[in-house]
Amino acid sequence: MSNSKKLQYFLGIDGGGSKCKAIIVAVNSDSQESEILGTGISGPGNPLHGFEQATNSIVESAKLALKDAGLEGIELSEIIAGVGLAGVNLPVLFEQMSAWQHPFKEMFLATDLLIACLGAHQGNDGAVIITGTGSCGFAYIDGEEFMLGAHGFPHGDKGSGAWFGLQAAKQVLLSVDGLVQFSIMNDVLLKKLDCKDEIALVEKIAGKPATYYAQLANLVFDAAERGDILAKNIVAEGAEYINSVARILWLKNPGCMSMIGGLTPRLQPWLDKDIKAKLSKPFSGPEYGSVLFAKQEMAKKVLGQKEAVLL
Amino acid sequence: MSNSKKLQYFLGIDGGGSKCKAIIVAVNSDSQESEILGTGISGPGNPLHGFEQATNSIVESAKLALKDAGLEGIELSEIIAGVGLAGVNLPVLFEQMSAWQHPFKEMFLATDLLIACLGAHQGNDGAVIITGTGSCGFAYIDGEEFMLGAHGFPHGDKGSGAWFGLQAAKQVLLSVDGLVQFSIMNDVLLKKLDCKDEIALVEKIAGKPATYYAQLANLVFDAAERGDILAKNIVAEGAEYINSVARILWLKNPGCMSMIGGLTPRLQPWLDKDIKAKLSKPFSGPEYGSVLFAKQEMAKKVLGQKEAVLL
Repeated sequence: MSNSKKLQYFLGIDGGGSKCKAIIVAVNSDSQESEILGTGISGPGNPLHGFEQATNSIVESAKLALKDAGLEGIELSEIIAGVGLAGVNLPVLFEQMSAWQHPFKEMFLATDLLIACLGAHQGNDGAVIITGTGSCGFAYIDGEEFMLGAHGFPHGDKGSGAWFGLQAAKQVLLSVDGLVQFSIMNDVLLKKLDCKDEIALVEKIAGKPATYYAQLANLVFDAAERGDILAKNIVAEGAEYINSVARILWLKNPGCMSMIGGLTPRLQPWLDKDIKAKLSKPFSGPEYGSVLFAKQEMAKKVLGQKEAVLL
Repeated sequence: MSNSKKLQYFLGIDGGGSKCKAIIVAVNSDSQESEILGTGISGPGNPLHGFEQATNSIVESAKLALKDAGLEGIELSEIIAGVGLAGVNLPVLFEQMSAWQHPFKEMFLATDLLIACLGAHQGNDGAVIITGTGSCGFAYIDGEEFMLGAHGFPHGDKGSGAWFGLQAAKQVLLSVDGLVQFSIMNDVLLKKLDCKDEIALVEKIAGKPATYYAQLANLVFDAAERGDILAKNIVAEGAEYINSVARILWLKNPGCMSMIGGLTPRLQPWLDKDIKAKLSKPFSGPEYGSVLFAKQEMAKKVLGQKEAVLL
């Protein structure tokens, strides 16, 4: 990487519901990428919660990453951006983001799922199971994307942090009514949410979003690990769903499969043995997947232009 | 009721999440009430969705009821109001509504559950199971209120219209992913919501409230009655919850028990035989229960004043 004139800077974006992460990587004329030169983190990047917010977060995190890399002299218009965003699996949001008058030299847009998968498997084919606030399964094989779940809260995303938290709240309310047995989750949940009783709990959780429920997921696993029957039943139901997702993904022959997302360390131990045996550690994060995606798409574009010249 | 000088007009209010219903009744000096003289319906009356909206709806429905009764000459300040509202089971909302500078001669505030119970049982002790957009069980015995459920959507209200609709949406999305078998609910649900596929469905239902899901409840019962296994499982789970609620209520010895709310005709046939045998037809609607409540509370107040004079 000695000849800086031949360096092309790539931006990798991972935009989710709570934050947007950016990294800067340099790629030389042999298409080899450097280490991560700089990182930036800004606000929410999911366009489902606002186009303005999402695009502002992308630009802000990009500038922070450049600054972190000591590359203040580089303009956004010189950079090739790979942008992976939650929400753009919905066609209407993909179109809206694609039409953005972005400040970059080039922008390649992908779902958060695709960049997570590319990041986990060094840009190669593979499958990922994502369990964070939401949940889903995804595979990328021979250029084809395949998705399971990712339907959202409260109608989908079984086995996700939000789902576990919601089950905990449901069980606590049912047990207060005498409809299921008492659980050690009851006191922990009321204490965590600073509620003196279940009426205060009902007031507190009314209308709350997935992110709120996701903060309750850990207490379900804590209780299950202490042997609480209700908590173990919840964990077993969530794990069984993730087992099913993993089995369907594996039938596609992805070659490799990883589990990623904030809930992974809690949930993975509860999966079936045969599923655990198939899981490999992810290679890198989704933001690195965005860089790999942008490199692949840029190569296709250049190749396409060369072919056009030859015709 | 010949001596109009001795008539006292009572207003009965039933305020819920979608509308507020008012009736006007005259009570003579022997404490006998007339038929319903007039009815008025206005917008949402649940203060959870706004204090201004709720109080405006109460006043508007009251004026409409007076007009309907041909009593435009009567001022609100001459009327004794029984006001039953959804939402005021939450202490903070009960306090807020109690502090309202209302325009009536007297106002007595109660939960929608208490007035529903009083209306169903002619002002006597009893129990009610309410299954509409939400669900709950309630009993009123020797002046004591007892409540089960009514926790809200999506964390509670099992067996309600919203719960049935949400289960339908969940099953359709799971079956599209190949995680459960296909159901005859799939096409019906997509058609009802005017969605060409499940991606359109996910876009459409994102962030929708309980009332939206409740409109899907009937299609679950339709499918169950046609023998669809997934729909029958959903109905069985919802009915089992309502059976449990009914059993707990009956243990309180309420004497009589009714099932009310928009989902009653669909759900009641699926309940256990012993539960169905205990259910009696409700005597009158919740708005009439509000009148009976106001009469009871006014009698207590007058009695209290007389006792105070005697001391």
